[in-house]
Amino acid sequence: MNYRIKTGIIGATGMVGQTFIKLLENHPWFEVTYLAASEASAGKTYSQAVQGRWHMSSEIPSYAKNLVVEDAANVDKAVGKCSLIFSAVSLSKDEVRKMEALYASKGFAVVSANSAYRMDADVPMLIPEINHEHVNIIPVQQKNHGWDKGFITVKPNCSIQSYMIPLHALQVRGYKIKRIILTTLQALSGAGYPGPSAFDLVDNIVPLIKGEEEKSELEPQKIFGIIQNNQIVNDTSFSISAHCNRVPVIDGHTACVSVEFDGKKPTEAEIMDCWNNYHSVARDLGLPSAPERTIIYKEEIDRPQPRKDRDSGKGMTITVGRLRPCNVFDFRFVGLSHNTVRGAAGGAILMAELVVAKGFVK
Amino acid sequence: MNYRIKTGIIGATGMVGQTFIKLLENHPWFEVTYLAASEASAGKTYSQAVQGRWHMSSEIPSYAKNLVVEDAANVDKAVGKCSLIFSAVSLSKDEVRKMEALYASKGFAVVSANSAYRMDADVPMLIPEINHEHVNIIPVQQKNHGWDKGFITVKPNCSIQSYMIPLHALQVRGYKIKRIILTTLQALSGAGYPGPSAFDLVDNIVPLIKGEEEKSELEPQKIFGIIQNNQIVNDTSFSISAHCNRVPVIDGHTACVSVEFDGKKPTEAEIMDCWNNYHSVARDLGLPSAPERTIIYKEEIDRPQPRKDRDSGKGMTITVGRLRPCNVFDFRFVGLSHNTVRGAAGGAILMAELVVAKGFVK
Amino acid sequence: MNYRIKTGIIGATGMVGQTFIKLLENHPWFEVTYLAASEASAGKTYSQAVQGRWHMSSEIPSYAKNLVVEDAANVDKAVGKCSLIFSAVSLSKDEVRKMEALYASKGFAVVSANSAYRMDADVPMLIPEINHEHVNIIPVQQKNHGWDKGFITVKPNCSIQSYMIPLHALQVRGYKIKRIILTTLQALSGAGYPGPSAFDLVDNIVPLIKGEEEKSELEPQKIFGIIQNNQIVNDTSFSISAHCNRVPVIDGHTACVSVEFDGKKPTEAEIMDCWNNYHSVARDLGLPSAPERTIIYKEEIDRPQPRKDRDSGKGMTITVGRLRPCNVFDFRFVGLSHNTVRGAAGGAILMAELVVAKGFVK
Amino acid sequence: MNYRIKTGIIGATGMVGQTFIKLLENHPWFEVTYLAASEASAGKTYSQAVQGRWHMSSEIPSYAKNLVVEDAANVDKAVGKCSLIFSAVSLSKDEVRKMEALYASKGFAVVSANSAYRMDADVPMLIPEINHEHVNIIPVQQKNHGWDKGFITVKPNCSIQSYMIPLHALQVRGYKIKRIILTTLQALSGAGYPGPSAFDLVDNIVPLIKGEEEKSELEPQKIFGIIQNNQIVNDTSFSISAHCNRVPVIDGHTACVSVEFDGKKPTEAEIMDCWNNYHSVARDLGLPSAPERTIIYKEEIDRPQPRKDRDSGKGMTITVGRLRPCNVFDFRFVGLSHNTVRGAAGGAILMAELVVAKGFVK
Repeated sequence: MNYRIKTGIIGATGMVGQTFIKLLENHPWFEVTYLAASEASAGKTYSQAVQGRWHMSSEIPSYAKNLVVEDAANVDKAVGKCSLIFSAVSLSKDEVRKMEALYASKGFAVVSANSAYRMDADVPMLIPEINHEHVNIIPVQQKNHGWDKGFITVKPNCSIQSYMIPLHALQVRGYKIKRIILTTLQALSGAGYPGPSAFDLVDNIVPLIKGEEEKSELEPQKIFGIIQNNQIVNDTSFSISAHCNRVPVIDGHTACVSVEFDGKKPTEAEIMDCWNNYHSVARDLGLPSAPERTIIYKEEIDRPQPRKDRDSGKGMTITVGRLRPCNVFDFRFVGLSHNTVRGAAGGAILMAELVVAKGFVK
Repeated sequence: MNYRIKTGIIGATGMVGQTFIKLLENHPWFEVTYLAASEASAGKTYSQAVQGRWHMSSEIPSYAKNLVVEDAANVDKAVGKCSLIFSAVSLSKDEVRKMEALYASKGFAVVSANSAYRMDADVPMLIPEINHEHVNIIPVQQKNHGWDKGFITVKPNCSIQSYMIPLHALQVRGYKIKRIILTTLQALSGAGYPGPSAFDLVDNIVPLIKGEEEKSELEPQKIFGIIQNNQIVNDTSFSISAHCNRVPVIDGHTACVSVEFDGKKPTEAEIMDCWNNYHSVARDLGLPSAPERTIIYKEEIDRPQPRKDRDSGKGMTITVGRLRPCNVFDFRFVGLSHNTVRGAAGGAILMAELVVAKGFVK
Repeated sequence: MNYRIKTGIIGATGMVGQTFIKLLENHPWFEVTYLAASEASAGKTYSQAVQGRWHMSSEIPSYAKNLVVEDAANVDKAVGKCSLIFSAVSLSKDEVRKMEALYASKGFAVVSANSAYRMDADVPMLIPEINHEHVNIIPVQQKNHGWDKGFITVKPNCSIQSYMIPLHALQVRGYKIKRIILTTLQALSGAGYPGPSAFDLVDNIVPLIKGEEEKSELEPQKIFGIIQNNQIVNDTSFSISAHCNRVPVIDGHTACVSVEFDGKKPTEAEIMDCWNNYHSVARDLGLPSAPERTIIYKEEIDRPQPRKDRDSGKGMTITVGRLRPCNVFDFRFVGLSHNTVRGAAGGAILMAELVVAKGFVK
Repeated sequence: MNYRIKTGIIGATGMVGQTFIKLLENHPWFEVTYLAASEASAGKTYSQAVQGRWHMSSEIPSYAKNLVVEDAANVDKAVGKCSLIFSAVSLSKDEVRKMEALYASKGFAVVSANSAYRMDADVPMLIPEINHEHVNIIPVQQKNHGWDKGFITVKPNCSIQSYMIPLHALQVRGYKIKRIILTTLQALSGAGYPGPSAFDLVDNIVPLIKGEEEKSELEPQKIFGIIQNNQIVNDTSFSISAHCNRVPVIDGHTACVSVEFDGKKPTEAEIMDCWNNYHSVARDLGLPSAPERTIIYKEEIDRPQPRKDRDSGKGMTITVGRLRPCNVFDFRFVGLSHNTVRGAAGGAILMAELVVAKGFVK
């Protein structure tokens, strides 16, 4: 591309919004030209708007500091300023649906970090390496909603990437997943800010993340689904049981996974081969955020570990380890992904790159 | 009893030994009269021996301060001083076997916190509420070894109590366990001192505890086993897959458990009834360390949590919560037990009380 | 005493209120007969009112479970039910002043954990071991306010006990303090619940506690003050500079203290003597919450440490260590006190015992 | 420079050595051509040598993976391979002195992260922004030792950078420091690996770092010293009292500092001006590791914080905040520096750049 696509971020002042701001610095395809948040921030520069609540460990990128924040509800302010919108608004489900539809109706390509549209049969929920073909539902969605060039795509829940990509590596080689029982040890940043109290996470863990288990069990079925009769049909041939825990880790969700296969079962060596030679469509398409290695298997017996492995591939690589036979199912392993990069803003940017590469952003 | 049983502790200076020292303060049945450790500590008072490495949060009990520590290898020093020995020695498996056998051969009732004898078919590995009848193997053990009144009993691994007792509550009511997949989030104290580096457990978790998964999968089969043909025969009718993690928690092992039943399946209400009305044989026998309530179910949706629930029943109660249907197996729940009390020294003291109550300590 | 004083707690459902509930279980002098909180809790049993937000690590004491919580604003509900009131209400400073005055005006002895009245010259702010004589201002206070038998006493800020008592031990022996520069490392529980975000306290510390430094510098001057001309006159002959930090510790405030003396300077041995032989007026008076040893000096070179020393003397003992010459002032040391016990509810109970012993509660 | 200086690292496998390996990746002036460690690592590739104990959060740089590690004691292996040596060997003080002298005697410019030579009057201990002129002692050192072109320079203790540079900013503007009382909250990585036990740093802090306070009080006097009569003479016109604590933070030492001036006292605005306009000689000299801004003052009231500010200027910037009058001395503030970058390997690399720029590496 010989120009960069003008891009907006709505909900730019929250934790996910800030991560977008950070990750889009010097992005080769996207130029941030529009920022919006709640009415309270409208009219302020971005620096003023996040004064005292900038949570990234690096400084506010200079490109963003003096951008004036608009009221996200005032969609007309975006018109002419950009064609792609990242949505990180923090609203009720109904309000998110209304606001994202509003932007789509005005012609924007909306790439959402929110869950509001995840289960709509005409909205692609994308992990580009796995279900890039789901973008083909976009014309159906546009027709259903009466939208001209605008549309909505959503990223899935942040806790599933650590095992979905490793499992996909097996699926594409013909090893069919039947049942999965897994436990996650999830990072604090996944809860937004302020999130859990330090009083609850020092010398303690919390064995509940509200709503997380349900999403973790349902969303993978859509991601592994196929388009049929103008809708994305979930793959219900496998089932997942997820136990989700909050642990005192800043970034990086870990999953302990037991897998049972249906039919042909791979050997340990075959699984290693699937992971070590995973073919990334996102790399084929030249998506800038696709990591050089999508999956890295750590040979050390005590890895992956969140602090030590989360930044692999700039936070976009999935790290796995501890592959071994399961005493009950077939195999077990530990997966790790960076929840605010691969699992949130970084994953959404990769999705945006996909829809651009596929020609949907006009 | 109108007198207290003279009791020794070998390996008295280590973390588990210190917990024995603490928990045996004012014990109604046991009077500590003999302490032993490595040669390096021999001849020192207990206060001197643990100088600068007393890890309990309360002071050294006054009864122990001035007891002179003997060389544990010098078993003759114990003769005449006590009849019951708690073993917390920190040696290689072979050395532990030799030393504990030495004490048993001299007529001592050895109650061990070590793993060396756990899988011997004539050594009872006891969770008194579950398999108190395994004490009946003791005469066989004495005959096998040619011991007169001495014998060895062992406590199981510290990570299994949180689910074994809740599962036993179901077993005794006729609900047969078939398969279990579980993940533990285990406390630091389980690793002894110094244990893991703080560098590895701040903003991090470690998804490996060496040897722990194997023990967690095998030991329950012995505990649920029966005595046949003069040996304890493991119950291999069920299988367990355990994923064991180290987390930055001081005390209290948490387990996320998915259970599949064989045959008749309980309803959620029936499971609650099994737990709420669990009948404790340890209470029937009047064992002083048996908690008033063996199992407590927490109704709060985010419990049990280690820091908040580990001290329940002075660390001897098992706390469970989050009972709900499993998306893959039948049910899932979270269990918690205090690893250095119920899972180590406290559990060993309860075992000692059992063998006393059953008349094996002479 | 052959009966227990009927006692109420207002603000009974918050973190400090819960600590009162816990510490007053089986208190020899006080019987809790009245609980009050905000209107939202009124009419509920205490168990219902704290459902899902009971933060103590032990269960709700059985005496409190079924007490019905009243609306604290409705002072008439208290009349006849009790004569002593512990105040832990969480309101604005003005509202606290009004509510505590209301209770005092109705004849209640109010012992407050709040800061609202701390700097009133006719309100004693008590660390009983240090300034028990300040209770003699109570008749003045009653006259000033036109109260008959009611009055208000307040506990000082939770971060100063760890050094005020050790410094008092020197003052009473004639070593006059001139200047103190200190840094605190303060526990999370001091901030109430939810308090700081875990996101801010994992792999991090926060070098600010709002308002804490100002209080830490001013309150000691009142505590060391004397009654003159019917008011408590601050001792301004010494000055304090306090740097206050929040660290990821559950309970226990640590202070690193450098002290300069005015005039006669003690030797290290003399300081040790002052601490080891500290005479506690609270013990003389037989106050039940006065610890057997008010100050314990730890000889280990790396103590005191919050988790290991905070529970000393049931949380009422001050632990000191690391006494050594200061390279700039005269001496330096590390002090530690349990912030929610000695520094809050426990300290307030000791104050209440003092005013009872002195005959002010009628 | 149109070529890179061939550089070696001795002690390359430890924590500090690994940080050198990481920070020297793509360094514009230095090309790592020689790695050495203990005999146990000799003959292995670097990857093999650090197998299972690579503690950096990024992968081993590809340049280092296949370099063969030599036995550091075998200095002849280094001859011809490099001219500059970074020393991070982990040995006794005497052994370090012998080994570093050995390398210097063979003509190598030794830049040491060890403390062994810190107090030698002919060895420059450098924070390049402050005492770059101390390099002029090198010819004296060479003469004293009979070395031809080799010499030794050392970096100071890792805990002093956070306040020494901010204080230097005041000194150079004519505000003379008289007395400093400070407390540090130091990160785990400063203790090497494994360092403190997690059991001691969860829900806890440790108020002692052995030897740290003495170093922190003495080294600044040498750094602010001058060359007189062929030796570096300490500046004893000011004194420091340091209280050093270990806290559960991975990287980043924080210091709470109270300062008293001698003579002319700056206003708050003047201090801000000194910091905001600090002139860096290291920048003048074009040293590649000198950060664009040596000192950054954070306006937010609760900063600096270690996790959020340590990476500023790639870990080479000093972050300060909370400047305010001191209740006892003149001013107080909070300083923060990255202990393994600015305080260790990064600081040493900056020193190496300085001696290169000054023409001492031949």
